[in-house]
Amino acid sequence: MSTTSTIAAISTPSGIGGIAVLRLSGPEAFTIAARHVNLPVPDKTTRFSPFRNGDTLIDEVVVTLFRSPHSYTGEDTVEISCHGSLYIQQTILQTLLDSGARLAEPGEFTRRAFLNGRLNLSQAEAVADLIDATNATSHKLAISQLRGGYAKELEQLRQQLVDLAALLELELDFSDEDVEFADRSRLHSLISQTYLRVEKLRESFHMGNALKRGIPVAIIGRPNAGKSSLLNALLHDNRAIVSDIPGTTRDTIEETFVVEGTPFRIIDTAGLRHSDDPIESLGIKRTIETVVQADIILYVHDTTQPFDQALNDLQELQDIRSFKDKHLFIVHNKIDLLKENLTAPYRTFPLSAKEGTGLEALKAALAKTARTDLAQAPDVMLTNVRHYNALGHVSQALLHVGKGIADGLPADLVIIDLRDALHHLGTITGQVTSDEVLGSIFSRFCIGK
Amino acid sequence: MSTTSTIAAISTPSGIGGIAVLRLSGPEAFTIAARHVNLPVPDKTTRFSPFRNGDTLIDEVVVTLFRSPHSYTGEDTVEISCHGSLYIQQTILQTLLDSGARLAEPGEFTRRAFLNGRLNLSQAEAVADLIDATNATSHKLAISQLRGGYAKELEQLRQQLVDLAALLELELDFSDEDVEFADRSRLHSLISQTYLRVEKLRESFHMGNALKRGIPVAIIGRPNAGKSSLLNALLHDNRAIVSDIPGTTRDTIEETFVVEGTPFRIIDTAGLRHSDDPIESLGIKRTIETVVQADIILYVHDTTQPFDQALNDLQELQDIRSFKDKHLFIVHNKIDLLKENLTAPYRTFPLSAKEGTGLEALKAALAKTARTDLAQAPDVMLTNVRHYNALGHVSQALLHVGKGIADGLPADLVIIDLRDALHHLGTITGQVTSDEVLGSIFSRFCIGK
Repeated sequence: MSTTSTIAAISTPSGIGGIAVLRLSGPEAFTIAARHVNLPVPDKTTRFSPFRNGDTLIDEVVVTLFRSPHSYTGEDTVEISCHGSLYIQQTILQTLLDSGARLAEPGEFTRRAFLNGRLNLSQAEAVADLIDATNATSHKLAISQLRGGYAKELEQLRQQLVDLAALLELELDFSDEDVEFADRSRLHSLISQTYLRVEKLRESFHMGNALKRGIPVAIIGRPNAGKSSLLNALLHDNRAIVSDIPGTTRDTIEETFVVEGTPFRIIDTAGLRHSDDPIESLGIKRTIETVVQADIILYVHDTTQPFDQALNDLQELQDIRSFKDKHLFIVHNKIDLLKENLTAPYRTFPLSAKEGTGLEALKAALAKTARTDLAQAPDVMLTNVRHYNALGHVSQALLHVGKGIADGLPADLVIIDLRDALHHLGTITGQVTSDEVLGSIFSRFCIGK
Repeated sequence: MSTTSTIAAISTPSGIGGIAVLRLSGPEAFTIAARHVNLPVPDKTTRFSPFRNGDTLIDEVVVTLFRSPHSYTGEDTVEISCHGSLYIQQTILQTLLDSGARLAEPGEFTRRAFLNGRLNLSQAEAVADLIDATNATSHKLAISQLRGGYAKELEQLRQQLVDLAALLELELDFSDEDVEFADRSRLHSLISQTYLRVEKLRESFHMGNALKRGIPVAIIGRPNAGKSSLLNALLHDNRAIVSDIPGTTRDTIEETFVVEGTPFRIIDTAGLRHSDDPIESLGIKRTIETVVQADIILYVHDTTQPFDQALNDLQELQDIRSFKDKHLFIVHNKIDLLKENLTAPYRTFPLSAKEGTGLEALKAALAKTARTDLAQAPDVMLTNVRHYNALGHVSQALLHVGKGIADGLPADLVIIDLRDALHHLGTITGQVTSDEVLGSIFSRFCIGK
């Protein structure tokens, strides 16, 4: 560890605030900090201190000391809580850099936590997800990945593969003696079980990803049915809720809305916004693509128009193969223009996007759908596309192992595929890593974490 | 203190970051925090803990405990350092509010620090200045007000007034006995000394304010001389420096530039930007007003035009009474268009605002001027307009005291004015306060400080 550099960064959000926190981590953290502040002596204690650069008083700060290995990074760490002026934050940072610290790269504190065994790689990725989380559902997924059953599930999978490998290696060691230790049919059955376990985890990715990024919702309907108005009504209402949270990117606000803590993601808003594409012929490629991607379909019908149009449209949608797995909501828009009471043949949502009438009922139904889906979801859900791809490789390798055993291939050939499966599983938790993979993971982080 | 409410706020800048810090202060701080985290036990120690709301895990946090009176506010205080996601910050804050804390008003932590005697009022104001400081000079002024000679100077002034009052009160007590304890001419001389001390402090306000808000610079010159180009060149160059500091307001960037840590403030940019007002007749009110307000005047001359125009303009400026106290820089702009070498009669700045040539020399001269002024500045400088006004009242009251003594007024009349002087001095440090004054002071703060 003595060759590691000592890194520094402002860890709190950028901008002016009451206070800001700088972190210093590495073998020289105490030495560098001691040139400028009075360090507290016992581990995990704080001390009020001037922060000086030579004779110049920069600020009055609170210093907290974390002695290796009892820190986030596992290294000696000093946290400096200063007044939240931009000038002070920058000056303290610059002073620490001038005293021998190096500016931390994005995610470098967490990267060190991983390298020092304080977190595994999937937990480190969960930290980034946690910081990005903007709603209850994505937050819950991230915290469960940080703490919960996911790491345990991966560890059990790994153990199964290691046990299998041990059995095969044993056979390999004694191969000269022509002894077949492992019962091949039992081996094959074990491989199948593991394969199914991997596939189950991979299947959870669809829902995990939907919950993390937003459940995909398609808004379709004939021209002038009011699709854009409905979109705006859903987004606008939400925008009011999030408007007091600065820093949220405009893009996110525009395409996602949150109901009862669950994010929903509108597919194909560009089409909705810039033109009201005709849906006369349901052969139109774009509508089909939108429907295929969606979990929930909001069909918007203009109440002042005959309903058989809508029925025809929906009839044609049935031909889409995955259609039966979707949730279909029919929105009867423009009820503000309606003269008579509505008697609809299905469970439907009479609504005026213009006046907001009926919007609450629609949102409640969306939330209920999400809750129902979530209740049926497995305990452990895959949310990370990198993990999904890695498990795809694990799955492929296990198929080869199974086929190799079934074909009676020698153990030394079978074991190559088994090791391949272990390798790909290891890339998820970080037992196997490359600098390239680590670089791409930690570049997602903000500086200071 | 048991009737005080417990307040909570996010103290770090708003937005997403690696970490964020929430503060909880008041008699119930430990009780409320203990419902959600495992508190560290000894004072000023930290502890890693889950933050839970009932059964729901919200985050893994670091908790720091400050026991009254050893905290910023002087009250029991808990600081919670969480992951810097917006969702987590908001959820933890909401959880603390649901458990009985109240959202802190802007500056309420510092207000409590003042009410509990941890800071005096001028120090509390210095905290706000410190957080607002964007450059070395305004930062230095704020930190000197927070720690340095200013409070000592005020205390010495107060002590002088108290001593005077004691002398007079003594005379008052024995007035029936017709004894005149205090030597009236010595009293008068003491009052004069104190008055001069107050006036000296008040005089420092001009420079203190200039250094805090930016040294006022006027850019004047004939139409098309290139005043706007020079302004843009000065600002643009600076903008590049500050562009990596988010959160700086656009207004500040547009009207102020920093050279070698000292802020300069361009006066009357609106006029410069929206029209190139003619300066043909120097009778024009606006130019005069601009010149009167400025410490430094940049007269921009178009090098391709005859220089006698500029000399005429400057000749007329001499008539402004305060002109002789200003620093006058003559900028020969458009040297890129010049065919021959320039031989100027004064110390001047040949410059091309368009190409940036000569800009460094001008900026170096600005910085040198500021340094020279600063070297002549008194050790203690007044930077706060509230204090300036209060000292104006002190000054007035002392004049009355002096006149009363000179006129041989009885002690009980003289002492009324002396108490008035003490009262106004007390409003600066907060020995005398009103809710209105406190409200206006602390509303300047950000929430969480």
